[in-house]
This record gives sequence, structure tokens and C-alpha cells, in this order.
Amino acid sequence: MSEGLVARGIRKVRRMLGKSPASSLLSPKQAAMLRGQLEECASGLGGEVSTRLRAARLAQIYRGLGDEGRTTFLRMIATEFCPDPKAVEAAHAEYQKAIGSESQWTAESALRAALRSRRLRILTQFNALSRGVKFLVDLRADLLRLMKDDPSLRSLDRELEAQLTTWFDVGFLELQRISWRSPALLLEKLIKYEAVHEIRSWNDLKNRLDSDRRCYAFFHPCMPMEPLIFVEVALVTELAGNVQMLLDEKAPLADSKRAKTAIFYSISNTQAGLRGVSFGNFLLKRVVDDLKRNDPNLVTFATLSPLPALRSWAEKTPGIWEQAFTPAMVERVARHAHGFKVANPNDIANVLGDNTWVAHPALAHALEPGLTRLAARYLLQAKSGSKAYDPVARFHLGNGARVERINPLANTSPQGMRQSYGMMVNYLYEPDAIEINVEAFTLQGVVAASTAVRRAGRD
Amino acid sequence: MSEGLVARGIRKVRRMLGKSPASSLLSPKQAAMLRGQLEECASGLGGEVSTRLRAARLAQIYRGLGDEGRTTFLRMIATEFCPDPKAVEAAHAEYQKAIGSESQWTAESALRAALRSRRLRILTQFNALSRGVKFLVDLRADLLRLMKDDPSLRSLDRELEAQLTTWFDVGFLELQRISWRSPALLLEKLIKYEAVHEIRSWNDLKNRLDSDRRCYAFFHPCMPMEPLIFVEVALVTELAGNVQMLLDEKAPLADSKRAKTAIFYSISNTQAGLRGVSFGNFLLKRVVDDLKRNDPNLVTFATLSPLPALRSWAEKTPGIWEQAFTPAMVERVARHAHGFKVANPNDIANVLGDNTWVAHPALAHALEPGLTRLAARYLLQAKSGSKAYDPVARFHLGNGARVERINPLANTSPQGMRQSYGMMVNYLYEPDAIEINVEAFTLQGVVAASTAVRRAGRD
Amino acid sequence: MSEGLVARGIRKVRRMLGKSPASSLLSPKQAAMLRGQLEECASGLGGEVSTRLRAARLAQIYRGLGDEGRTTFLRMIATEFCPDPKAVEAAHAEYQKAIGSESQWTAESALRAALRSRRLRILTQFNALSRGVKFLVDLRADLLRLMKDDPSLRSLDRELEAQLTTWFDVGFLELQRISWRSPALLLEKLIKYEAVHEIRSWNDLKNRLDSDRRCYAFFHPCMPMEPLIFVEVALVTELAGNVQMLLDEKAPLADSKRAKTAIFYSISNTQAGLRGVSFGNFLLKRVVDDLKRNDPNLVTFATLSPLPALRSWAEKTPGIWEQAFTPAMVERVARHAHGFKVANPNDIANVLGDNTWVAHPALAHALEPGLTRLAARYLLQAKSGSKAYDPVARFHLGNGARVERINPLANTSPQGMRQSYGMMVNYLYEPDAIEINVEAFTLQGVVAASTAVRRAGRD
Amino acid sequence: MSEGLVARGIRKVRRMLGKSPASSLLSPKQAAMLRGQLEECASGLGGEVSTRLRAARLAQIYRGLGDEGRTTFLRMIATEFCPDPKAVEAAHAEYQKAIGSESQWTAESALRAALRSRRLRILTQFNALSRGVKFLVDLRADLLRLMKDDPSLRSLDRELEAQLTTWFDVGFLELQRISWRSPALLLEKLIKYEAVHEIRSWNDLKNRLDSDRRCYAFFHPCMPMEPLIFVEVALVTELAGNVQMLLDEKAPLADSKRAKTAIFYSISNTQAGLRGVSFGNFLLKRVVDDLKRNDPNLVTFATLSPLPALRSWAEKTPGIWEQAFTPAMVERVARHAHGFKVANPNDIANVLGDNTWVAHPALAHALEPGLTRLAARYLLQAKSGSKAYDPVARFHLGNGARVERINPLANTSPQGMRQSYGMMVNYLYEPDAIEINVEAFTLQGVVAASTAVRRAGRD
Repeated sequence: MSEGLVARGIRKVRRMLGKSPASSLLSPKQAAMLRGQLEECASGLGGEVSTRLRAARLAQIYRGLGDEGRTTFLRMIATEFCPDPKAVEAAHAEYQKAIGSESQWTAESALRAALRSRRLRILTQFNALSRGVKFLVDLRADLLRLMKDDPSLRSLDRELEAQLTTWFDVGFLELQRISWRSPALLLEKLIKYEAVHEIRSWNDLKNRLDSDRRCYAFFHPCMPMEPLIFVEVALVTELAGNVQMLLDEKAPLADSKRAKTAIFYSISNTQAGLRGVSFGNFLLKRVVDDLKRNDPNLVTFATLSPLPALRSWAEKTPGIWEQAFTPAMVERVARHAHGFKVANPNDIANVLGDNTWVAHPALAHALEPGLTRLAARYLLQAKSGSKAYDPVARFHLGNGARVERINPLANTSPQGMRQSYGMMVNYLYEPDAIEINVEAFTLQGVVAASTAVRRAGRD
Repeated sequence: MSEGLVARGIRKVRRMLGKSPASSLLSPKQAAMLRGQLEECASGLGGEVSTRLRAARLAQIYRGLGDEGRTTFLRMIATEFCPDPKAVEAAHAEYQKAIGSESQWTAESALRAALRSRRLRILTQFNALSRGVKFLVDLRADLLRLMKDDPSLRSLDRELEAQLTTWFDVGFLELQRISWRSPALLLEKLIKYEAVHEIRSWNDLKNRLDSDRRCYAFFHPCMPMEPLIFVEVALVTELAGNVQMLLDEKAPLADSKRAKTAIFYSISNTQAGLRGVSFGNFLLKRVVDDLKRNDPNLVTFATLSPLPALRSWAEKTPGIWEQAFTPAMVERVARHAHGFKVANPNDIANVLGDNTWVAHPALAHALEPGLTRLAARYLLQAKSGSKAYDPVARFHLGNGARVERINPLANTSPQGMRQSYGMMVNYLYEPDAIEINVEAFTLQGVVAASTAVRRAGRD
Repeated sequence: MSEGLVARGIRKVRRMLGKSPASSLLSPKQAAMLRGQLEECASGLGGEVSTRLRAARLAQIYRGLGDEGRTTFLRMIATEFCPDPKAVEAAHAEYQKAIGSESQWTAESALRAALRSRRLRILTQFNALSRGVKFLVDLRADLLRLMKDDPSLRSLDRELEAQLTTWFDVGFLELQRISWRSPALLLEKLIKYEAVHEIRSWNDLKNRLDSDRRCYAFFHPCMPMEPLIFVEVALVTELAGNVQMLLDEKAPLADSKRAKTAIFYSISNTQAGLRGVSFGNFLLKRVVDDLKRNDPNLVTFATLSPLPALRSWAEKTPGIWEQAFTPAMVERVARHAHGFKVANPNDIANVLGDNTWVAHPALAHALEPGLTRLAARYLLQAKSGSKAYDPVARFHLGNGARVERINPLANTSPQGMRQSYGMMVNYLYEPDAIEINVEAFTLQGVVAASTAVRRAGRD
Repeated sequence: MSEGLVARGIRKVRRMLGKSPASSLLSPKQAAMLRGQLEECASGLGGEVSTRLRAARLAQIYRGLGDEGRTTFLRMIATEFCPDPKAVEAAHAEYQKAIGSESQWTAESALRAALRSRRLRILTQFNALSRGVKFLVDLRADLLRLMKDDPSLRSLDRELEAQLTTWFDVGFLELQRISWRSPALLLEKLIKYEAVHEIRSWNDLKNRLDSDRRCYAFFHPCMPMEPLIFVEVALVTELAGNVQMLLDEKAPLADSKRAKTAIFYSISNTQAGLRGVSFGNFLLKRVVDDLKRNDPNLVTFATLSPLPALRSWAEKTPGIWEQAFTPAMVERVARHAHGFKVANPNDIANVLGDNTWVAHPALAHALEPGLTRLAARYLLQAKSGSKAYDPVARFHLGNGARVERINPLANTSPQGMRQSYGMMVNYLYEPDAIEINVEAFTLQGVVAASTAVRRAGRD
């Protein structure tokens, strides 16, 4: 008996749509029905029971749709619940007229109100559901994907992004340590979300949470079992230069009490729908602080990171081989490159081509200095617009790290070869320099680097 | 050493302003200095350490200011970091031109972006502080107070209200039961915030949390020990009509297992800065649900509520006494009103005037039927615009209750006499009718009421 | 420098023993050294740092020993730290003399004190370690195993059992629900401890914790991640008679909201060292209560249990085949038993012998009634001393269940055939009858059973 | 209908006794009824529902009795459920005969079993109640009080003490910090239990939990809101010598970040029923460790303690005034002691007699050196048997502290004057010396003291 008018309406739609919930298309009649529902939703009327019921049903309908159906659904919201241009025009005229007078401030608010769309009202109603925030984050992921082919979704995307940015304000994020004592429900998400070095099994996971490992994640209070970003850390005795050794499940357990170095060997963003929502430039600083508090013997904090776009950048950058390989280096490669003719620097690309060089120690050794210089140039000079070319570099430099050391033959997996000729890089987080590095990088674009790397990138 | 450029700047301001942190005024030089800080803040540059440091210092400066200084501070944010009218004009022109074309959606976003002020950027930086949300809520309370005399603050207020509305979305609120097992830090807030029936001591509080009482509050995850609104409940055997008996610390403990009725006898909003931010129309429904789950023997859920504006309304409503008191009632009052001449209904106001009538049972008894009719008319008919005149009625009707019973002589404290001639009212929350009542009230303005009250308000 | 005298002593032993910590034998010199340590330990002197250090080292030494070394270690405690017979004799004489006088009570205490051994003082010192209780429980498991060959350990075992009985008093046990949200550290213990139906993988485990399953365990506050006993429950629509169907990972998820029956399909004791320590006769009653509270639609609570000793009992019980199989039943079996000569009831044993009968539906069908009668007799009549012969029956009858239904072909795994010719049994926990069943069983040995089972076991 | 036979029996007793539950005496008929109940209880039969019901009713009866009734109740348990002397005699004979043979160990267990009384079985059944442990601790407090007049209770007391000693093993105790964020239910216990410096109000309590204060308590997992012992700590800049200043609610808040010294100014045992149950000699060591971890700037950890028995000791120790006051000191006192004749050291007692000397600074000053020497002698030399005479000294020395400084005029409240002529003492906990001090004190009775105190106690 507690059911209201709105609730009864919803059930009608459900009967109608519900017959083919898994279908990916909406018939014209269904679309009309849906439009009616969205209209009610945007009006915001009714009690909370109806509101939740309506939101739950719409969410269920949405989940049952394929890409085409979702596009229709989202486009309906995007284009039919937009601000009224006439109202905006009138409010704007008032606003411009009021500039300088006392009523400017009210007019400004009125213009902003006129521009406030009813789209958001629809979207935020999903927040009343128990996992509503997660639903909206996933819906945003759809939007990002679908709007490539449908520009009419862009405005909706920007509004939702602004809403999520407010909700995921960095002041609300909580750092939590994850361990083998964490809920299995949470741990299986790590297995699912790990984006850098796949977690192959629960044993592999347990190994990554052992006493010589640490794992941290950031959470939002409204998405309790959903890590937003997580970092895997190995406690070792010295700067690690090879990731396969770190991931070896059979490697002996290190004594974490003696470790002096913390290596961040995997960092994964988990929510595609939060693209563009900044988590601040402080994440790793907080991890470093917590590590130091709990293991005061740790003195070095560094990553072991991939260079995901190095190879594709090198392959399209003219003259890069001449810069990276000095004549002496070319000559030395030539001496060991059986079966390849190496007359000038550009021939190096051929030698590197099919990755067989890795199997020849002497050749690999001859290639090392030039590859290191290549990577240093890539990190110090390559730009995409005004920003660092490499996305991983962007993240760490923006978080206050410096480029510390380039490691050849650090990841000879197929992926490692394809991305960066097997090279990896250590970014160093020196606690006292983090803030200064952040400011120099964000204000002036200065890339902090060790002397060795600076030299390799310059000479 | 981790201190950046921005941090050093802040310290300068601090030295300058810090000399007189408690002073309520800003000198021109201080204002210039502050302007510089706000400018940096709005630019959003720098690492998080600097950002926090800056926010912390600005917050400290703000707290040290009196009303005049705060007005200056807020007006500076409101007027100097507003959108650029020229940019708005240009974006608006683009937008209007794009209507109907594919670029409408991008243009809409661009206009919205042009209208986005830098004020919010300043305000949200305070959120990085550990109690930043609370700081902003309190700042909003200042704004609401100060903008009465300063219209230029209005736009800032609306932007902050919108931000708080997003943060305090009803989907984020958590209902928690409060008991004598709750932290003392939280319980002392109840003493501080109780707005209806003052809590006089820790003993009084303990009595209100005893086994025959319940207390619920709503919390936001980012303000962990701050109740936003709280409800005090007494478990009794039947509909309570007298609040002083409920508050009597010496009354014997009731057996909660036998209670059939839950009386909500005090509901307090705690955060002045959240005015206009809706907590939904579902709060008491959730409390009712939790009470039922834990005490399945409870069948009646009702308030015992004040009528805060009844007397002031009656005193300014012409002809109300004729409506409320029939000639027979007037005559009966006349018979018992020693020392007053009661010839016609308007003379009743004089009899009621100095509250001495309460001490004369026969007179009080003669007044009862007319007073009850007065209250019924007040609740069913009095409007402020299209809304119920009484703020408490607005809250409960909007939450799905109905007007159940009017209780004369229910609160004969000076406050009770001053507000409502000592009357109180029970609003009834019937679980199965809540949703329907909400819809009828919000969609059509229908005030639900018991037969008895409807009759008293009509005949 | 905070190290005391005792601590220095310990380090000496460590140096001496530590050279071969993994060796399973103690040299005479090592034994002498150990004796000295135990002597200090029994004296109870020294500060807590020393005590803990000493306990930690002794625990490490113990863990490093094999069975022979452990026997030596335990025997040393058992025989060299026993009470002094002379002192016991003297105290006993005083006690007997004092009977009837006022000093009887002091004399009784004195005799008890004389009998108190220093063994316990040694053992309880391990409790100061962070996982000391678990260490002692595991040590008791060793004792139970080793004392079979060494009667001198018995007295130590009884003292430790008494100590554990006090610590694991039923008043201290806590029932907790285990779910996929529980810590992985705890969940992997389920995989390890499951004693009835092996958990094959994390996926199998997740399936057993899905929304149509429940899992409960009992914990002691001092062994936080160690379940003492745990119960796996399936929510189904009717009394389940086949365990393989319950364990099928690919079976569709049931709608727990519609389930009316809870089947306890696996109950595992986890701590061998707590043998003889009673957890009370109330465990399943508590589980039933919690299930009912959370799923009020559940009305039937029953197990699906093995009959672990049925076959071994049948094979050694003379005349049992005549009792179980009537001539008509024998005749029907004979008709379908191709290749076997079945002239009289005792020939049935041959038919059953190699388990091939399961593959012949007609034969299996012919065997069913007799097998059911066999199982009924086993459950109702077979005794070991005055107690039920079947250990699982003992547990459930002592917990207040009744024998509800016998299920042929319920578990045709090799283990199921070996234990009970593939039969299983449902024990029914009827909430209102539990207490009465417990009393009738514990006070008078009455086995509660359904009419069908009683008839099958009697006719 | 789940009620068993035993439960029905209980209700009979209840009807009988229940008529006068508050009466303090038991009629012969009631006693017989109670005896029957205890007999059933000791037999341990029946299901857990009955057991709990029985225990709950017996507990209710017990609580309803006055001292006389409780004595009868306890005496009945103590004397009628004792071991059977004949069975003990037989088991003892077997045991003595078996000495040296293989059956010695079984015989030892058998003798111990014969001596095990049924009293404990009765008492431990109360543990099944939800607050059963607390009930037994309170019952023990009764026993301790009542057995002074009734020796027959002694044996029961020793058995219960042994049981409680096992339950409250130091390995089970948990240190928790208490703050203003702790539950009010817990905090009001501090007000109730504070034994040294009364907590006068919730404001006083809040002051003692402010940011420059710390409070720690030890808990047992089965008594969750019951502190067993608690310590109040003030963070100050230097060794505090005056307790009234520490307790002053109006004193300004200290900056805990700058504090170097932690003063333990109040330590209260809360459970009279745990007398004789040792909490180990490590309590303050753990508090010190936690303080250091959280406030690394703290370097000094000391108490400000009373000398509760100094004055009574001085008044009965012959020749003590000659030892404490040198002729020069006596002479100096004589010079300022207006109205008193001070010819020899024994006259000092008269001067001190009525506490008026405190009001005369010069006289007080003249008395100081002698009083200090008196206190030093008291602490270093006074013994009760082989133990320190002062109970507070016994506690702190046994916990590893040393006597650091004697403070005249440190507590001039009436109680302070009555106990110790206004003197207090600082015991110093030097982290690195705690363990050595414990061992030296417990093994050899050495009292650690600062040079100054040692000198004052010797010269």
C-alpha cells in the first residue's frame, strides 16, 4: 500500500520494456515510454520510495541494453533535457545589463540556473541506489566510449564529469593499506583491475601481499570495496632493475626489517569512468609517508616503471637514431650484429626489429649505451603539446618524482620488447624533494632527473 | 626542505596578517596581500603540501576575523573572482549560433565553462584540510548571515550552496543509531545542538538514551562526528500528549518490550550552513523502518511537535476568533473568565493574553474546544505562499506524516505558551501511507489529517 | 640494554641448540641446557621481557624438533615438573585429619595446591606470546599423538586439557558469519580445514559463499583468525538428499529469498588439539537462530550428513543382514543380481562388496529398502558403550536434532561407498524441539527420529 | 515449547523464592529448593537453554539477597559441593602406590580429578550468561568480604581465584587508549572507579582526556566495557611535583608536541573481585611503549604517587625521628615552631600533629629536609615481611620503576596530610632499565632509587 502514483507508472514501463530486457534496441513505442519516465525523473517529484524504484528500474533497463540501445538512452537524456536556449538568452541579456550594478550577482546566479540542465537531475537520482555512484562511474565509461561516434553526448559527458569531479574531490579520498587480511571481495578486484603486470592466480596475489610486499589503494567513502587506484610495492635491499625477478613467486621471502628500498612496481587506475577526474598530485607522497611511518628503516622510494610509448615514438621520430647512437656505438653494434648490415645509425632500427638481439649477449651489450641514451632523450625531451609524451612519466613527474635510472633488459617479455625494447625506468621519490619537483614541473615544465640520466639525454 | 615556493609566500602573509589575527578588520595592505594569496589559490598551481598549507593559513586567517573582516574576505572572493562577462558574452554568442547544429553541445559546455567562476576553486581547496567540509559549512552559515547586508555575496552563496548540495546528496547520508555507547565527543554535540527541548546535563542526556528511548541521526561520511539532523524517540504505551512528562528524568523507566508507540519528541537540524540543502523527504521513514526492524511490537509512530508560529499567526489573522470560537464556546468562556469581559470572540485574545488562564482549570477547560479548532484551522488552512505556514508542519507533511491529534495544555512552559497557547500536535507516520502522503502533499499540496482534526478545522 | 639476566641465559641456550634447530634429537648436553631453561621458566621469576623472550625461544626450539625431540621435550616437562609426592602425602594427611573441623577448607586448598604441578606454569608462559594460545593448542595435538606411545605424557595432557577447557569455556565462543567479504587470511583456513567435502579451489570456495549459501564459524577471542568449528549451509527449496548436487559449482544460483530449507551439508572441527574440550550442545541452535533472524522465510533446518562407520559396523555385526533384509527383499535382490548367487541375507554383503551394483539401476533399486533398514538400525540401535556408535550422530543428537530421513545413493563417491554404501542421512533441527531432544538424549539416551525412520529401524 | 524439564523446575523455584526476591534471608524451605537447583546445576545436565535459564535465575536470586542470604547461598556451594574425602583418600592411596611405576601419571590425574569439586561446575555455569564473567568477579568480591567471618568459604574462594587467574591470564589482557572519543558508557566507569583523585564531573573528566593528557586501560575480551586497571597521564615539560596543579581544570592546555615528560598521576584498580589475580609486571612498560610510539619527543616517564602508609608507619616506628632529623635540623625546626617546644627529635611528631605547620612557610621549610629523609627511609627500608611496606611502592618497583624524587608539600589536601604529611614521590620508568629493575627487585629485593634518594635514606 505504500506504493505511490509514480511507482505504478514505472511498473507499466517495466511490463512493456521488460519483455525484451536483453535486447539492444528500443522500439519507437518503448522510446516514448522511456521518455515519459525520464520526464518524470527530471521533474524530481514524488517520494523517495518512488524515486528509488524508478531509478532502480531505469538502471535495470539500461544494464539490459546493448551499445546501440544505450546510445539511444543516453542521447535522449543529452538532447531532450538540455537547457532551454531561449531562457538562456533572456537570462544572459539580464546578466549583461546588470554588470556593474548591484543586481549583477543575482543575475549571474540566474544565468547559471538557466544553464543548469535537467540531465543532471536524472543522473543524480541514480545516486539514491545502494551502488549508485558506481553505476554512474560505469555509465560515464560508456559515455566516453560512445561519444566518439556521437558528438551530441559530449555535453552530457562534461556535466557528468563535473559532477564526478565534485564527488571525487581529493579531500574525500582515503588511503588504505591492502593485505592478505583484506576481504576476498576486495582482493579479487585487484586480480581484475591489475593493468601492468597481470595477477595470474590467488597464489600470485598472496605472494604480492606477503611480508616483504605492501599494497595501497585509494578509496572513496561511497564506493567501499572499489579501489580507485592501487600501488604494489616490493621491499628490497637496493634499487631494483628487473621486474621479472620481483614477480617471481618462487623467489625467497625477503626480510622486510632489513629492506632499505621500496619499489613501486605496479600502479593501476581502475575506473575508466573517472577519466579526467584528478586524484591530485599527492598519491605517492601519501604512500611514501605511510611506508616511512611503519618501516622507519626504508630510505629509498622508487618505481620500476614501463616506458609504454618509447618504441612507437622512436619509430616515428626522424633523426633519433643519429642522436642516440654515436659513431663509436654504431661501430660496436656492427661488430656483433651477425646477419645485419649496420652502416649507419638508421640501421639500428633493423637490428632491433624482431627482438632476436636479446638472445645475443654481446650484441645486447653493444646496444645498451645507445638504447639508454634513446630512453633518456625520450624522457627528457619528447613532448605531446606542452606535456611529457610518456603517460607514465607524466604521472610520476606530476607526483613529484625524478627520473633516476634507465634499466636495459629489465622486462624482456613480448610486451616489454614491443613497448620499449625491454627497457624500464626507475622514478625516485625523494621525500624532501617531492613538493619542489611538483611545483617546478607543474609551473615551469621542468623534468627532474639524476645527473646520469641528464647526461645521457644531453651529450 | 619539502617546502615549495607557494608555501614561502604564505608565510609572508602570515607574518603580515598574523600580527593581529584576532582583529576584525583588514588594512589596505593586508587586503592586497590577501588578494595575492587568493589569486594563487584560484590558479590551483603548486603541489598538495603547498595547497594544504595555503588553505590552512587562509582558514586560520578567516577564523581570526570578526564579521567586518569576514565580509571583506568573502566579498573579495565573491566580486574579484567572478566570471568574465566578456568571455561569457562571447561563449553565449557561439552557443546561440550553434543551436540546432552538431556543435551545439560543445558550445553549451563552453558557455558553462565560461560561467564557471574561480570562486569555487578557492573554496574547494579548503576541502583538502582534515575538517574542510565542516569549515565550508560554517563559512556558508556566515555567508547566509552576512549577505543580508551585502547583496554582492549572493552569487557566491548560490555557488557554495550548489556545491554543498552535490556533496550532501541524499544518497550519501547515513542513518546511525546513537546510544549511551556512542563516543562522548559525539554525545556532547547533541547537548550543544538540541534545539527543541534543551538538554540540561549529562544525566538528562543519559535519560534520553535509556532503554525506553531511541535516538537517530544522519551523518555524512566526510563529517564523521557531526550529526546533520537528529531525532529523539520515546517508546511508550500510547500516543503521548504531554512533553513535560516525557522529559521528566525522574519518571520510571518503561519496559521497551511492551511499548507499542514510538513518539518522536524532538527533531533538531544542526548545521545552519546547510540551509536550502535538502536531505530528502525520507528521513523519518528510515527511522520508522529501523525502529520496526528492532522492535517489531511497535505499531504506532508519531511525533509530539510544537506549533511554533500559531500564536503570531492568530494575532495577525483578522476574524480568526470568530471562526474558532462558536457563540456557545464564547459564552462558556465568559462564564469562567473572572475579571475579563468576554462579550464577543475577539475578547478571547485578551483572556489568553497573559497566560494566567492556565492556572484556572475551569477556564482552561472552557477554552479547550475553541483553541483546538484554532490550531486545526492553522494547520489545515494557513499558508505562506503556496506552502504550509508552519515550518514544522511543512517538514512532517513533506516527510509523509498526517496531522493526527491536537493536544491542549501539552507544553505549558513559557516557550510553549508564547508559541501556541500551550498546545502541541501529534503527526502520525503510518508506514504504509507515507509514500502516498508525500506524493499527495508535494504534487497537489494536500494536507493529510485525521477525521477529528479535519472536522475541527472545518465545521 | 633493557635485557635482563634471564634473557642472557636464554641466548646461551640458543647458541647451543640453535646450531641445529631443525634436528629432531636433543644431545645430553642440550637436554641439560633445556632442563635449566624449563627450571627457570617454572620458577616464574624475571620480568615480562625475559619471560616472553624465554617463551619465544623455547617455542622456536620446540617447533624445530621432530617427533622424537618433541617427545623428549614434553616428557621432561611431564615427569620432572610433577608434584612432589611427599608434599602431597603430608597435605593429604592434614586434610583427612581436618575433615569436619573448621580447618577442613584451608586444608582442602592446601592439598590442591600441593597437587598443582609446575608443568602448567611452564605451559602458560607460552600464552604471553602473540599467538600463544594457538601454540598450546597445537602442542596438545602433538601430545595426543605422542602419548599413545608414552604413558608418562598422560598427566601433562590432562592438565593441559583442563587448562584449555577453562580457556575455551562455551561462554567465550563467538558465532560469526563468514562470507566472501571475510579476510582472505581467514578464508584460506576454510580451504585447509574443510574435512568433509574438500574445497578444491578459490572458485569452489566462492561458490560455497554465494548468495544462496551461508557459512558460520565459532571463534575464541584469543584466536582471532582461527575458526574452531565451521558449518556450511545451502539454502534450497526442499530437503536435499544428494550432496554432489549441492557441491556442483555449475549449478544455477538459487534465489535465497524463496528458499524454505537450510541444509547444513558440511561441518568441520578444525583444532585437533581441542579434543575433549566441549563447545557445548548449542552450536547449531545458534546457527539456526541467526539464519531465522536474517531469512525469516526459512522453516526447515536440516543436515545432509555422512554415516562414516556404517559399513565397518555392518561388516562386523553378526546377523545384521537378516535383520535388515526381509525374505521378500532378498528375493528381489536375487532377481537382479546378475552374476551373484543370492540365497540368503548374508549373500547381500557379497553383492555390495565391490560397489559395482551402483551402476545397475534395477539392482540398486532392489537393494534400497534393505539398505535403508540397515542404516536405521545402525542409527537407532548401534552403541559404543552407552553412546551412539556413529560419531556424527553423537554430535547432532547431542545438539538436539532428530534423525529425519535416510537417503540411498546420496554420495556415490569412493569415500561415500566405502563408509556407508553411498547412503547419507538428514538430521532435522526443529527449533522448538531442540532443547527437549537435547535433554532426552543426554539424560536418558533417547534417540529422536521421524516416524519413517523409527519404523524402518524396528519392523 | 522449546522449554525442557530443567527449565520447568527452575520456574518452580522462582515462584517460591520470587515472592520475596529482595529479602536477605532464606527460609528452610527456600534453602531446600535452592539446594535442589544447585544440585541440578552441579550435575551439568540438560541443554544450553535450560542451563542459561537456570543460571540466569540463580543469578537473579543471588542479586536479590542481602549479605546474610548471600552467605547462606555461598556456604551451601562451598560446603555441600566439596570433594568427597573418601574418594580423595582412595585416589591418594592409589597415587602413592603408583609412584615410580608407569601408572603414576594416570594415578596423579585420578587424584586431581577426585579433588576437583563440583563447586566450580556451579560457578562456571554463570559464564554462559552474557555478562557472566563480570557476575563471577563481583561474586568473588562478595566472597572476599564475607569469608572474613566464615572460614568455610575459603576453599570456594581459592577455587574461584584459580579459575579467574586462568581466565585473566596476562596473555589475554589488551591495552587500549581511552579518549573523549570513547563510548560514554565506558567513560562513566572511569568516574565511578577513579580511586586516587576523584573525578568530580564530566567536565573534569573531559579535562583529563584533553590533548595534553592520555589515559590507558587494560581490558579482558570477555568484559568489553569494563576497564580492569587504568592509568591517567599528563604530558608536561618537566617532572611534576604537585598534583593539585595537574588536576586544576582551569590550568591552560599544554602543547603536547612540546612535552618531554609523561606523568602517571593516577592509577586505579577497578575490580575488587580480582584481588590476588596478577596482571603481570608489565603494565606500565606497555603504556610507556605506546606513549613513545605516538609521541616520540617524550623522554621521561614518571609517576606522581602517594605514600599512603608513611604516616601510620612513622607513628609506630620507634626511633624514626632521631634517624630522620639530625640535631641541626631539629634545631632549625625549633627556631620556627612557635608555640611548640622542640627539644629533641621526638617532639617533631607534635609539631606535625595537627597539620597547621603547612600554613607557616618558614616552619614548613625547616621541616622539609627531615621529612624528605623520613620518606626516603620509609621507601628504602620499611618492610612488611620480605616485601616493601608501601603498597604503591610495591606496585611500581615490581613494574620496574625506581624511586626518583621525594616532593614535600605535593598534596596538602586533608588526605595527603593524613597519609604522608603532604609528601608525594616520583617513580621513574626508564625504558631501558625497566627489565633489569624488575629482575633485581623480584629476584633479590633490590629497591632501585636515584642517588639523591639513596643518600637521603642512608646518611
